[in-house]
Amino acid sequence: MENTAAAAAAAVETSVTVSAFDVSRRPDTARLVLSSPKPPGVREELVGVVRKAFRPRARGAGAGGGAGRPPARWGWALTALKSVFPVLQWGRSYSFKSFRSDVMAGLTLASLGIPQSIGYANLAKLDPQYGLYTSVVPPLIYAVMGTSREIAIGPVAVVSLLLSSMVSKIVDPATDPATYRALVFTVTFLAGVFQVSFGLFRLGFLVDFLSHAAIVGFMGGAAIVIGLQQLKGLLGLSHFTNSTDVVSVIKAVCSALHDPWHPGNFFIGCSFLIFILSMRFIGRRYKKLFWLSAISPLLSVVLSTAAVYATRADKHGVKIIQQVHAGLNPSSAKQLRLSGPYTVDCAKTAIICAVIALTEAIAVGRSFASIRGYKLDGNKEMIAMGCSNVVGSLSSCYVATGSFSRTAVNFSAGARSTVSNIVMSVTVFIALELLMKSLYYTPIAVLASIILSALPGLIDIKEAWNIWKVDKMDFLTCLGAFVGVLFGSVEIGLAVALAISFAKIIIQSIRPQVEVLGRLQGTNIFCSIRQYPVACRIPTVLTIRIDTSFLCFINSTFIKERIIEWIREEVETSDEKARERVQSVVLDMSNVVNIDTSGISALEEIHKELVLSLGIQVK
Amino acid sequence: MENTAAAAAAAVETSVTVSAFDVSRRPDTARLVLSSPKPPGVREELVGVVRKAFRPRARGAGAGGGAGRPPARWGWALTALKSVFPVLQWGRSYSFKSFRSDVMAGLTLASLGIPQSIGYANLAKLDPQYGLYTSVVPPLIYAVMGTSREIAIGPVAVVSLLLSSMVSKIVDPATDPATYRALVFTVTFLAGVFQVSFGLFRLGFLVDFLSHAAIVGFMGGAAIVIGLQQLKGLLGLSHFTNSTDVVSVIKAVCSALHDPWHPGNFFIGCSFLIFILSMRFIGRRYKKLFWLSAISPLLSVVLSTAAVYATRADKHGVKIIQQVHAGLNPSSAKQLRLSGPYTVDCAKTAIICAVIALTEAIAVGRSFASIRGYKLDGNKEMIAMGCSNVVGSLSSCYVATGSFSRTAVNFSAGARSTVSNIVMSVTVFIALELLMKSLYYTPIAVLASIILSALPGLIDIKEAWNIWKVDKMDFLTCLGAFVGVLFGSVEIGLAVALAISFAKIIIQSIRPQVEVLGRLQGTNIFCSIRQYPVACRIPTVLTIRIDTSFLCFINSTFIKERIIEWIREEVETSDEKARERVQSVVLDMSNVVNIDTSGISALEEIHKELVLSLGIQVK
Repeated sequence: MENTAAAAAAAVETSVTVSAFDVSRRPDTARLVLSSPKPPGVREELVGVVRKAFRPRARGAGAGGGAGRPPARWGWALTALKSVFPVLQWGRSYSFKSFRSDVMAGLTLASLGIPQSIGYANLAKLDPQYGLYTSVVPPLIYAVMGTSREIAIGPVAVVSLLLSSMVSKIVDPATDPATYRALVFTVTFLAGVFQVSFGLFRLGFLVDFLSHAAIVGFMGGAAIVIGLQQLKGLLGLSHFTNSTDVVSVIKAVCSALHDPWHPGNFFIGCSFLIFILSMRFIGRRYKKLFWLSAISPLLSVVLSTAAVYATRADKHGVKIIQQVHAGLNPSSAKQLRLSGPYTVDCAKTAIICAVIALTEAIAVGRSFASIRGYKLDGNKEMIAMGCSNVVGSLSSCYVATGSFSRTAVNFSAGARSTVSNIVMSVTVFIALELLMKSLYYTPIAVLASIILSALPGLIDIKEAWNIWKVDKMDFLTCLGAFVGVLFGSVEIGLAVALAISFAKIIIQSIRPQVEVLGRLQGTNIFCSIRQYPVACRIPTVLTIRIDTSFLCFINSTFIKERIIEWIREEVETSDEKARERVQSVVLDMSNVVNIDTSGISALEEIHKELVLSLGIQVK
Repeated sequence: MENTAAAAAAAVETSVTVSAFDVSRRPDTARLVLSSPKPPGVREELVGVVRKAFRPRARGAGAGGGAGRPPARWGWALTALKSVFPVLQWGRSYSFKSFRSDVMAGLTLASLGIPQSIGYANLAKLDPQYGLYTSVVPPLIYAVMGTSREIAIGPVAVVSLLLSSMVSKIVDPATDPATYRALVFTVTFLAGVFQVSFGLFRLGFLVDFLSHAAIVGFMGGAAIVIGLQQLKGLLGLSHFTNSTDVVSVIKAVCSALHDPWHPGNFFIGCSFLIFILSMRFIGRRYKKLFWLSAISPLLSVVLSTAAVYATRADKHGVKIIQQVHAGLNPSSAKQLRLSGPYTVDCAKTAIICAVIALTEAIAVGRSFASIRGYKLDGNKEMIAMGCSNVVGSLSSCYVATGSFSRTAVNFSAGARSTVSNIVMSVTVFIALELLMKSLYYTPIAVLASIILSALPGLIDIKEAWNIWKVDKMDFLTCLGAFVGVLFGSVEIGLAVALAISFAKIIIQSIRPQVEVLGRLQGTNIFCSIRQYPVACRIPTVLTIRIDTSFLCFINSTFIKERIIEWIREEVETSDEKARERVQSVVLDMSNVVNIDTSGISALEEIHKELVLSLGIQVK
């Protein structure tokens, strides 16, 4: 129906007096304007609607390095390979200097990544080694397939929370950890498959469905929920609620405080939290010391482990990690539950995880790409992320994505390419092989403090304030997501944010502005006489503009009644001065790009009403 | 955020060269255009968004007859009364001539209404008298409160089907008819309350959510489903499925045909169906004999009952109605279940019934009002319908609304006001008192044939073909509703239609047109160079128009990347001829009425990109 809006408008205009308005008064103007192209046929129209929705973001971006040269015999294969594995493209020009930077960045990344991974595994209700596994395999896959140079792949807080809160509802990790783990791998596999298919079918726009405001609110709420979950580790509690909402968690903490608890945990957690935060403060103050903030979590782990080992504080109630399996990722291919009673639940969880993980990764990737001045291919990123997760799910990893905090560290440490991810992966691998035994005495409270220290970055009060200033409805979305996550659950928060975002678009389509236009004196510019009181109406002509893209079922009745009411008022009030009576009505539908059947029948009814009831003649 | 779109556009335009385009070249043009009003404050903005959505349709329409005169002491009370009861307004000028027409129309209406009501009660799985009760009380209430003059109130096919299919899922009418009936009354009460509140809170736009296309599809599907349900009566089956989808019904019919069945039912049903249809054909052919089609159902009931009584065919397998309670509507106030386990389910059913009933009533009312050339007040109609149903639910009625077929008969019979509804109600009341005993021998098959004869009016193939020609996406909505009702259930059909309708709006917002504009030679009109190949681009200036009302989260990234890509292409290809290089970019955002935070940040990023990467200067 596009492009016919103008034609429909012309049909309804009871007398178009173009020449009266046109100051330049060229006779061929009308001819030029009205010689619009033919409306599309049946097939083109159907195909067009679908294609427009799924059109690739950037044409030609995937052409690879072969541009300009005629393709050789195996040229197309090479081009395809280069397109799938961008490493083949930038690998040639990779220099030793870049490598040196990447090694330094990778080591810094690993020193932050190891303690964070263990902490996030704890948040995901998995054993510590699974967090480390997730920092080994997915970064390797991403390094050869991804297009972002700075992003650091691995487990992140929000996805860990999402996974644990959703999978816990299917199987309780405390009573049946093996099934819980199997379901987590299944979710990871399915999330990867979803991500790959989003990329292949160019569904990149799905990521846009979560508006910026919704993400700000969601992240803020998730950060507070994650923080509250850390009270378990920080207070050394044994029993805790599986729910994530504020009310349940506060109740659980209150009831736990009646039991005897060991202040040693709280003391360790708080002191290392203060240590990490002050290191970060120093790192921010003096840019050259940024590595202090990157290395402080690892330092905390080492120091606290040594302290507990030296004082044998675990015998006095300080909770420790105890057993950690050493060695490389075991295969988990046989644990996937792709059929059976849990598959549907897993798929639901997977699609939410896939979208949230992609949203975070693409937001991180885009913001750093824009600093460095290059462009990210959203669909390729999705395929790379998806492959990382599919391969990860077969090697005991859970859902990995780009982390805000680690990507920032990677960037500050001077990473030049995804090689820093490879270096980190190898470092974590070595740690898995050699150092796991020494984690036995690591207090759980220090993991809680590492997670807590990463949370302030997720709560963006400044941005929320900014949203409030710019758009109140957007702030409502933000607040809805925040409150939903905080008092409902992660899924409820997302659902609320999505519902508000879409309801906003629908509500604004329901009651569009319909304006009477007047001419600005001495020009041929027509403006709303409500907005520009200086604009003058043209005698005997009523010009009405419809301010919406869609003249469709949800607003056609409103627009029709509005216009008829106005014309009727005009005709009735100006009855005495018969010479100034409205004789022509011009509908300015230049804003309308789409009309459906309801819209067309509304136009027809306006026409009928004008001719029959009001006696406005049709020329 | 409205009205600031223009301001934001001005901020991003890297060099606005209005004067170059403007043929009339008046110095004060820019001043006039840029002296736009101040953006609204926080409160106005929030209130504005809400108010705009819920704004009354027609202002001053409820002022009543007191216009022009100064209000007397009790004038305001009279005005309010007149507003609530329009009968007080038109009652004064009501003439004997109108009354005579109304009595004739009312009697014709009753002769059609009595057999239809019995049939629809059967469809709603209630005893026959409940259909008649519903034709007594709601028309009386509507007569004093409604604004439509032609509409005929009573039970209708689609609502009866909806009610029986949804309430049957809560309680089986075969095993527990008392509870089933109580729930039907509860649903009726709640539906009435919903309708009144829609009217009071001016939520008339909710009715528009079901687009014309969706209604065409839904009605078509419902008609076929209702027709299939009649196979039970037509074949004289004792056991039948409670499901309404085609597959279940055909399965039920096939399995029932294996049992012995009595062709007498089928014979009676078919012969009277042919009789009614041929009477209608004659009525259409010779306009003066239209009463033949109106009276033929009643005639069929009388003839078939007499035939069965005479031949005692009920002893040979012909199913008859048997017991019908005589007398006026009993009170059902004590049967309402406003608390207890079923209330939530009842409320869900009620809201769907309320919307469907209103949609049908308002569609019927509007179409006849437009023929007679007066206007219907949607909100008042809702209050009138709601009150009818609330009072109805207290007096053993189920959900009543305006019927397509009976309204057409009422109109053809020359009804002048709602008095015809009162006449019909009184006639039905007399029939309830006196004639109920004689319905004992009425064969059920004749009821089926009466319902079947009313169905062709609901299937509007011509309109569906029209929708297909005009808008393929609209046809998809229509088809979705049709297939959903046919193979799923009534609720699924509605949900599919709503989902497709809204998805259409969202999808078209996701990928808006972004056009490069050129000037039509010799004019100052700018058009898309894609649509108008004759339009010429202005050297060194790239003019881009964004064709959407909403620059928001779902399309901001797409628009941003599109624009940046174009500018980059322009800059890169025109590098050699340095003098023709793009130096200014003008964004025409006159179509954009709303920007959210994502939209603003997209504009900021375009600006940044232009300045940093492409070296386009900001003046």
